Amino acid sequence: MTKIAAIIGGGVIGGGWAARFALNGWEVQVFDPDPQAERKIAEVLANARRSMPGLTDVALPAEGGLRFCTSIAQAVEGAVWIQESVPERLEVKHSTLAEIQAACDAEAVIGSSTSGFKPSELRAGSTRPDQIMVAHPFNPVYLLPLVELVPAEGQDGALVDRAKELLTGLGMYPLHLRKEIDAHVADRLLEAVWRESLWLVKDGIATTEEIDDAIRYGFGIRWAQMGLFETYRVAGGEAGMKHFMSQFGPALKWPWTKLMDVPEFDETLVDLIAGQSDAQSGAYGIRDLERIRDNNLVAMMRALKQQDWGAGRLMKQHEAALRAGTVLEARAADIDDPSQPVPTVHRAVPLDWTDYNGHMTEAKYLQAFADATDRFMELIGCDAAYIASGGSFFTAETHIRHVDEVHAGAVIDIRTRVLLGGGKKMHLWHEMYEGDRLLATGEHFLLHVSLETRKPSDPSPKIAAALTRFAQAHAALPMPEGVGRFVGAPR
Amino acid sequence: MTKIAAIIGGGVIGGGWAARFALNGWEVQVFDPDPQAERKIAEVLANARRSMPGLTDVALPAEGGLRFCTSIAQAVEGAVWIQESVPERLEVKHSTLAEIQAACDAEAVIGSSTSGFKPSELRAGSTRPDQIMVAHPFNPVYLLPLVELVPAEGQDGALVDRAKELLTGLGMYPLHLRKEIDAHVADRLLEAVWRESLWLVKDGIATTEEIDDAIRYGFGIRWAQMGLFETYRVAGGEAGMKHFMSQFGPALKWPWTKLMDVPEFDETLVDLIAGQSDAQSGAYGIRDLERIRDNNLVAMMRALKQQDWGAGRLMKQHEAALRAGTVLEARAADIDDPSQPVPTVHRAVPLDWTDYNGHMTEAKYLQAFADATDRFMELIGCDAAYIASGGSFFTAETHIRHVDEVHAGAVIDIRTRVLLGGGKKMHLWHEMYEGDRLLATGEHFLLHVSLETRKPSDPSPKIAAALTRFAQAHAALPMPEGVGRFVGAPR
Repeated sequence: MTKIAAIIGGGVIGGGWAARFALNGWEVQVFDPDPQAERKIAEVLANARRSMPGLTDVALPAEGGLRFCTSIAQAVEGAVWIQESVPERLEVKHSTLAEIQAACDAEAVIGSSTSGFKPSELRAGSTRPDQIMVAHPFNPVYLLPLVELVPAEGQDGALVDRAKELLTGLGMYPLHLRKEIDAHVADRLLEAVWRESLWLVKDGIATTEEIDDAIRYGFGIRWAQMGLFETYRVAGGEAGMKHFMSQFGPALKWPWTKLMDVPEFDETLVDLIAGQSDAQSGAYGIRDLERIRDNNLVAMMRALKQQDWGAGRLMKQHEAALRAGTVLEARAADIDDPSQPVPTVHRAVPLDWTDYNGHMTEAKYLQAFADATDRFMELIGCDAAYIASGGSFFTAETHIRHVDEVHAGAVIDIRTRVLLGGGKKMHLWHEMYEGDRLLATGEHFLLHVSLETRKPSDPSPKIAAALTRFAQAHAALPMPEGVGRFVGAPR
Repeated sequence: MTKIAAIIGGGVIGGGWAARFALNGWEVQVFDPDPQAERKIAEVLANARRSMPGLTDVALPAEGGLRFCTSIAQAVEGAVWIQESVPERLEVKHSTLAEIQAACDAEAVIGSSTSGFKPSELRAGSTRPDQIMVAHPFNPVYLLPLVELVPAEGQDGALVDRAKELLTGLGMYPLHLRKEIDAHVADRLLEAVWRESLWLVKDGIATTEEIDDAIRYGFGIRWAQMGLFETYRVAGGEAGMKHFMSQFGPALKWPWTKLMDVPEFDETLVDLIAGQSDAQSGAYGIRDLERIRDNNLVAMMRALKQQDWGAGRLMKQHEAALRAGTVLEARAADIDDPSQPVPTVHRAVPLDWTDYNGHMTEAKYLQAFADATDRFMELIGCDAAYIASGGSFFTAETHIRHVDEVHAGAVIDIRTRVLLGGGKKMHLWHEMYEGDRLLATGEHFLLHVSLETRKPSDPSPKIAAALTRFAQAHAALPMPEGVGRFVGAPR
């Protein structure tokens, strides 16, 4: 049954939470006194709708509803998760949390998006302190998986586990911190860099743009996939971490950062930074920058997914959960009626599959058909384990008809039919649809090969039997229009 | 004529420099007294050869030779660039630089890979101080574009410009710092995070793995594309940078980092960090981690390239330089003899185009053919400007024959022939080779369309004329084997 999330405070972070929940099928109830809140959240939702659904190779559940409420009490009604994202002032947090707890279900998780307060500070004076924990996300909340989950000391472990389970279900990564500390972990690292950077700008060593370039052309790309310590472990070379530390240990005594010495935060500094930031990024509006950022994040996260590493590995795990119990993970034996074409792909078109005006690019049609072929192979038993054992199907030739266009974010379905299946041969026919609109067809001829000799060979009897079963059942279907076409054949 | 680079010090960084120069066609002369140097550099070169050539969509020049020398004098002979990467001890730097200057060309650039010394410190006591500057790269040097270029105050501007030009030619980004400071810019930011992280581990707040996760699942992915300030500008939302600063300005006064308070660097701390690092990454050897890292970096940087942003935009600029003056940027009118198939793709197979055992994956064959089609369209005048004016060619159908396999790093060439070209129609035939080994053929039927109506329309007279010229000239060629095949047709 549909779960309800309450979003208290609908700024950039609250709006991001609303999008993350809604696009994962939750009903979302928002409270924010700001008259602009509805418009602002609509902007965030629009960004999320274009970037998030295609992030995974499996479509998300149907989007949940979004309702704006006139009171906190109304917003928290029936909610199993309540996310507080009000301004970073402790007295505001306290009064908001008190109002939430006066009306919400005692079993609900109350997460706070606080950047810096410790859970013990948030819980002070609360009637049900055990319900409150820090759940600190990162902007954009609908794309970045990290959530710092900080329970207070001795907090009910069952509730914490429930919180982790719910966040994981949203495709997020709950980083459970065992000890509370000001600013948790990530913001402490960010604050150190922020203070050092303010000094560099104030002292005229570098501009904001030069500092950003020093990050994004260098260690930023390293950190995106391995973070700090694993990167240094590699930098240590064959001698590893100890060598690296002995190499850079002495630097701790050198004047390599300004550190505790904090710059005076005055108008001059603000104007200096803001002015340089305008010079650097002023050519783009904030909405442009948000979309550019989301394009980049989606493309990089999907690149990491292809490598099965870092944030990409998390996405693979989330996909496995989305596939669980659907036909997309079924095995041939589970399919009682093999007479119909088999659903092999059910996904949204990702941003990195589209051109500058949002249409899916030519080569990505074959990407989707190749994914469909891989899925069908898995269905009949040619899975990772079988391939590791030395056999697989190789595509010998392919014919694609581009029938209609499709945009980023659209959900596409591919249904696969066996035209011929026997011995070493497998002749497949894929049809790609958006709803009932035919987008493309893919006709593929594959041969089973020995991965050792790279020469044709017979598949395992189990695979041969599963393939033959579909081939015989599909033979009864009318021949699809376009089969056996050659390029340029008259229509 | 081939340029010579001298690499003094052949560790992880020196070896990376050697690879960066050699794979860009330079002759490289290495000096390192370490008897292991030759083996170590061979390891780095092997990593570079598998990851770097495919980073760009244009093949690099033929690899230059690598020669190990028995003295600094021998290594710097004839070198226009000399890169010093010896241990981070000032007296060692001084004696090495003195030996270099005693033998090298007075016009050569002497770059130092120092992480922390200021150029004025390196130049102290030098006979030709003006020749020495900081050129601080980032590991892996053969993939990451950033080089912090720090001249001393009043250094010869012409030499600095020459240094920037040479580094840009290597596909790197020289970040020219106008003021010298300990640890330059990037290492100051890294040092701040390093010190804060040591505290977090020492105090038992988080493990090395938890800190890495906090980075790579969160801000690390943001920084890889926008850095610190542009990310915060966006985080500020509609109100932008000033709003963000006023929001987080007060935090400067809060205990959000340990900062100047530096942890005691003792064996206990080293063992704690090294032990946690083993638990986190010990399942992989350093060489495995290097290859995993390089796969990830290539995939993410190419993802950014597709978005034309950050490090990806730098790669596009580098590609333009690699194309300059070759047939890959020619226009139809420049081609005097149109009778032969046109070279449209000349590139190495990138890591992110291959499967787990290094073969180019099915869908990437169409990617390469689609790139060839785009390039042929550009050749006949259907370029970005024309497309922006409202016309383009859309692919209606495609037939691919997979003839043979190809590995990551292999250089592939595609030659394109017009089978039919007239009115709205364009029928192309691509052949993909590695050397003279045929890998695949692509047969494509395209229609010229109006981007407004998305319906077929006539191309511009200029494009029609250029297309017809190739169609007529190519008609004299023998019909290629495989034209007009349908999937599963008997061979």
